[in-house]
Amino acid sequence: MSDKEIKNKIKVFAPATVANVSCGFDILGFALSNPGDEVTLQRIPDGKGNVNISGISGDGGRLPKEVDENTAGVAVKLYLKNTGISDSVEISIAKQMPLGSGMGSSAASAVAAVAACEALFDAGMPLIDQLKIAMEGERKACGTAHADNVAPALYGGFTLIRSYQPLDVVRLPVPEKLYCVLINPDVEVRTQSAREILKQKVSLQDAVIQTGNVAGLISALYSEDYELLSRSLQDVLVEPIRKILIPVYDKMKYTALENGALGYGISGSGPSMFALCEGRESAEKIVKPLNEVLDNVGISGKIYVSQVNQDGPVVKE
Amino acid sequence: MSDKEIKNKIKVFAPATVANVSCGFDILGFALSNPGDEVTLQRIPDGKGNVNISGISGDGGRLPKEVDENTAGVAVKLYLKNTGISDSVEISIAKQMPLGSGMGSSAASAVAAVAACEALFDAGMPLIDQLKIAMEGERKACGTAHADNVAPALYGGFTLIRSYQPLDVVRLPVPEKLYCVLINPDVEVRTQSAREILKQKVSLQDAVIQTGNVAGLISALYSEDYELLSRSLQDVLVEPIRKILIPVYDKMKYTALENGALGYGISGSGPSMFALCEGRESAEKIVKPLNEVLDNVGISGKIYVSQVNQDGPVVKE
Repeated sequence: MSDKEIKNKIKVFAPATVANVSCGFDILGFALSNPGDEVTLQRIPDGKGNVNISGISGDGGRLPKEVDENTAGVAVKLYLKNTGISDSVEISIAKQMPLGSGMGSSAASAVAAVAACEALFDAGMPLIDQLKIAMEGERKACGTAHADNVAPALYGGFTLIRSYQPLDVVRLPVPEKLYCVLINPDVEVRTQSAREILKQKVSLQDAVIQTGNVAGLISALYSEDYELLSRSLQDVLVEPIRKILIPVYDKMKYTALENGALGYGISGSGPSMFALCEGRESAEKIVKPLNEVLDNVGISGKIYVSQVNQDGPVVKE
Repeated sequence: MSDKEIKNKIKVFAPATVANVSCGFDILGFALSNPGDEVTLQRIPDGKGNVNISGISGDGGRLPKEVDENTAGVAVKLYLKNTGISDSVEISIAKQMPLGSGMGSSAASAVAAVAACEALFDAGMPLIDQLKIAMEGERKACGTAHADNVAPALYGGFTLIRSYQPLDVVRLPVPEKLYCVLINPDVEVRTQSAREILKQKVSLQDAVIQTGNVAGLISALYSEDYELLSRSLQDVLVEPIRKILIPVYDKMKYTALENGALGYGISGSGPSMFALCEGRESAEKIVKPLNEVLDNVGISGKIYVSQVNQDGPVVKE
């Protein structure tokens, strides 16, 4: 028996995430401190094991309320199944970031859901098993059970997906002064398009350059070497192709780097973009010039400044 | 003026090295504690700046004694030129490992030469500049100024060559219990052949797998996580092709792993192979079974057991 107070209702926040991180295509991601989604679960101890979505806000009516079609619904249902818990659960989802934006929106909801289950039922489920459940939520939303958003959203900080077969996730350290500027322009890039345009063959030489940069980036995270981190944030495999789907990408990147960002890249499969900076001041300094670039071409958008999250999901109440 | 005692003769040891290290093709290398080459320099303060090779032992008469053709000769000459030193130098080289074996033989001589220069003349040359000189020695021996042997031989431990343009070398930490078993079979593989058979195009999927493993390996070195290190020592780009040039490669690898090695791969471009092990005992345990595999197919060879070197070159006397 747990000594913890048994609650019947709980609200959990899970953060937006940046997947890929330049040279870390398909293997790296990190979590932001904000924005993120909130999922509230209400436990009904009726022994029926029903799951129901009572409300979704902030999605403009775009997300399915059917449990089996909803990333959070799938996660809660699987959690109950895997733990053998027979209570019913009512889910309420507060989306606090745009959908399909390359900010890990579906991952945040899936992770908030599974973390809320764990906070509510206290089954002592290992993180790797929680991750597998969140990945199934991600599969419902994206078609594939990829982990590069759910892993950082759940573990916090930087995560490495070393391998999928078997699943091998490594939590990486985060230098304390690492801040992220996340730029979400009001343009649409379909994940499928972003994947389809990738070349299926790359040169061995480029693969070697990419491994060198990934190795440099991992070393920089451990050694808190911001200069090495900056030199390593280069992607020769994917960015040169995907950036053509994002308006004024080169100009945005140039502007961020000129104003002191350590690196700049596409967040997930875009259209969101991220800059990493040393310190809050340095991060805030690039917001205005980036907004001006967007303004000049008449693209609206939202820019978030956030410390790289160290904690993963947070129980709010 | 330096307070150090000025010597006129000095002997320096520089270690054998393993380049590539499975997933770290063309970017990673590490140094052994033994074997290695010794280079002795005799300073002659005649103001003439002549460089002469007085003797080479242990090479079976295969190495050139012409200064401009010899990796150590080239390094010493360049050191004198770059520092403006006008003394003459006499070089004596004691090779203590096989040539053209994938053990970084030419790199050891070049590094021993430049480190001996620095010990003798005390010009305060930064390591990165010493490295560039040793790379020119390597260019003479191998045709290209690659750094994946000279960097670990000079810096010690594991080194990452993040980039060549510009040259960016990162010294990585080495877990204390990391031992290497180096197997040098008596077969010949020409470096040129080993490079020519590589595919110039690789699949994006394999490039992603390789980056995941490299990231895992770097993380493991920092966190001293031997299990992660073991899982990460996989090479999907180069080993599947190059191993066909090395007799009984699969059998040797299987035997090493079955007997507890953390990982097994081709050293440089072969034919030497390496195993990494946790602790000396674990390393020594695989020597006999590996020898038996070689014996069974009638291949002679030499097997070295060594802690991963933490120090780089050592002044002997």
